[in-house]
Amino acid sequence: MTDNVSSPTPLTLLGTGDMGTALARAWLAAGHPVTVWNRTPARAEPLAAEGAVVAASAAEAVAAGRLVIACLLDDASVGETLADAELSGRDLVNLTTGTPGEGRSRAAWAEARGARFLDAGIMAVPPMIGDPASGAYVFYSGSAELFEEHQTTLAVPAATRYVGTDPGFAALHDVALLSGMYGMFAGITHAFALLRGEDIAPKEFAPLLVSWLNAMAPAALETADKLVSGDYAKDVVSNLAMQVAGSATLLRTAGEQGVSTELLTPFLRLMERRLAAGHGDEDTTGLVGMLTAATG
Amino acid sequence: MTDNVSSPTPLTLLGTGDMGTALARAWLAAGHPVTVWNRTPARAEPLAAEGAVVAASAAEAVAAGRLVIACLLDDASVGETLADAELSGRDLVNLTTGTPGEGRSRAAWAEARGARFLDAGIMAVPPMIGDPASGAYVFYSGSAELFEEHQTTLAVPAATRYVGTDPGFAALHDVALLSGMYGMFAGITHAFALLRGEDIAPKEFAPLLVSWLNAMAPAALETADKLVSGDYAKDVVSNLAMQVAGSATLLRTAGEQGVSTELLTPFLRLMERRLAAGHGDEDTTGLVGMLTAATG
Ligand SMILES: NC(=O)c1ccc[n+]([C@@H]2O[C@H](COP(=O)([O-])OP(=O)(O)OC[C@H]3O[C@@H](n4cnc5c(N)ncnc54)[C@H](OP(=O)(O)O)[C@@H]3O)[C@@H](O)[C@H]2O)c1
Ligand SMILES: NC(=O)c1ccc[n+]([C@@H]2O[C@H](COP(=O)([O-])OP(=O)(O)OC[C@H]3O[C@@H](n4cnc5c(N)ncnc54)[C@H](OP(=O)(O)O)[C@@H]3O)[C@@H](O)[C@H]2O)c1
Repeated sequence: MTDNVSSPTPLTLLGTGDMGTALARAWLAAGHPVTVWNRTPARAEPLAAEGAVVAASAAEAVAAGRLVIACLLDDASVGETLADAELSGRDLVNLTTGTPGEGRSRAAWAEARGARFLDAGIMAVPPMIGDPASGAYVFYSGSAELFEEHQTTLAVPAATRYVGTDPGFAALHDVALLSGMYGMFAGITHAFALLRGEDIAPKEFAPLLVSWLNAMAPAALETADKLVSGDYAKDVVSNLAMQVAGSATLLRTAGEQGVSTELLTPFLRLMERRLAAGHGDEDTTGLVGMLTAATG
Repeated sequence: MTDNVSSPTPLTLLGTGDMGTALARAWLAAGHPVTVWNRTPARAEPLAAEGAVVAASAAEAVAAGRLVIACLLDDASVGETLADAELSGRDLVNLTTGTPGEGRSRAAWAEARGARFLDAGIMAVPPMIGDPASGAYVFYSGSAELFEEHQTTLAVPAATRYVGTDPGFAALHDVALLSGMYGMFAGITHAFALLRGEDIAPKEFAPLLVSWLNAMAPAALETADKLVSGDYAKDVVSNLAMQVAGSATLLRTAGEQGVSTELLTPFLRLMERRLAAGHGDEDTTGLVGMLTAATG
């Protein structure tokens, strides 16, 4: 522990599960003094051998220094863990996955106790942590001052991406990307199912699918442009009328191949409803609003 | 028309809709003598001014030369259009979108009439045709002899990718890629819906989503490896048990943001069923077989 500004900042890490352990190792490797605490002490012990100080309680770990990082199971476990800790004057960075609403209420909770707060969403799995080539990064939102002050330390385990003062925005970005990914995984699953029992090598097909998905993903840029302009019919090459007509071939093929259409139909039905509402000249951007129409 | 092997091959094109017209222009620009026919003659006329010969009937167009290309609405229109044509000795290339089953039965139909047959699936929209930089390509399957003989001609409007002698395979590849794409589009739609009403610029979010989807698409390569090896639990970093637990955050976030989960739940439900069946240590590869289990 030193006041030399170029020395690695000391920090406390609450939670040494798979992700917490990977984070601790990255900071230890970069020379940061790290105090750790874990509910089940045995899970923190290996880090002691690597140079971490293991605190006897969460409150003691929090007392060890200003920068406190939580990487616990869920938002409830953060509240439980910090219930008896003195947070006044602390900088709390929450790397625990949660919803935007949880990020916002946890921020208010931390600020009421005198702490600055930053919420985060980790876009990586543990083996990517500490490997700059892995593409791993973490969304941060909340206190801009906290982020600026500790950006160098936070950047040690993975690249940082600050997305605004609203403490819900890190989780919102995180969940939006993961939700988008599960849509893609559903498409990949259906695609492979169509090939089952056919003499087509999955390993020859897969690179074609990856290239195609990569080539089509930029449709999201087009969607963003249209959401901003509000003109969903501008410069549309394949309009909804054509896409709905074409989707019949997709459904008939699934039928021929004996593949359930459960992953495919929800989006096709949404296109059909939008077409029926008189938007056949548009692209699929109008479907975004249909998902929130009932409630928003 | 010449027998000099280096001269562009003459060809007949049936159907000058949006796609047929783009194809005809690419072949005309490359110096191929092109005979066209379209059910509605007015739609073929602009091509006459660009050097195409417009035939008075489909039968006459087919009689003009050996290589006959159909780009019509659907498989039924191919049968209708060619009902009275003499196909013996012809090389029929079907660029009309259809199902694998339609490709196979159309192949049998054409061969019974003395023609060689190649089915195709166009992975492009008309503006991409004739532009080598567009990434456009066409899947072909069926007669390998036909493909080899006419490969150079077929490569003029878009790159070629021959995927086997089974005439259903071009359509199967085409539909599998399109189905995968619609899954991704569903994910993109849900992601943007989550952000509605929030102070997050769609144009700042979209590139993050595109990068994330591009980074995650190679999961398809992993799925292919596992389908081949049959070991769905090998080297799994995020297993189904973890993914199902994590999906609760996705669903609660949709609830907070007032977004319908209709595009998200079918895949999450499939993961839950697979987990409940005792496969919590696997990745999502096992879901592929679940889509065909009821029928296959
Ligand atoms: N692993 C990934 O791929 C990944 C990726 C992105 C984000 N994340 C996020 O990172 C966070 C940690 O994940 P992980 O992979 O490290 O999970 P993990 O291996 O299951 O570890 C969970 C941690 O939370 C602790 N914990 C659970 N309930 C608690 C409670 N009530 N009070 C105090 N501590 C409690 C556990 O302590 P015990 O050891 O005592 O059980 C353990 O330290 C999660 O929010 C997760 O969503 C993980
Ligand atoms: N456009 C694309 O983005 C795209 C992309 C990939 C694949 N494709 C495929 O390419 C094929 C043609 O598409 P397109 O975009 O050119 O469609 P299009 O502009 O609607 O043209 C359809 C063509 O089919 C003809 N036709 C329809 N029914 C017929 C019948 N019963 N008998 C004879 N001719 C008939 C039409 O003739 P009339 O002019 O007389 O109506 C017209 O030539 C389709 O299979 C489509 O799926 C298109």
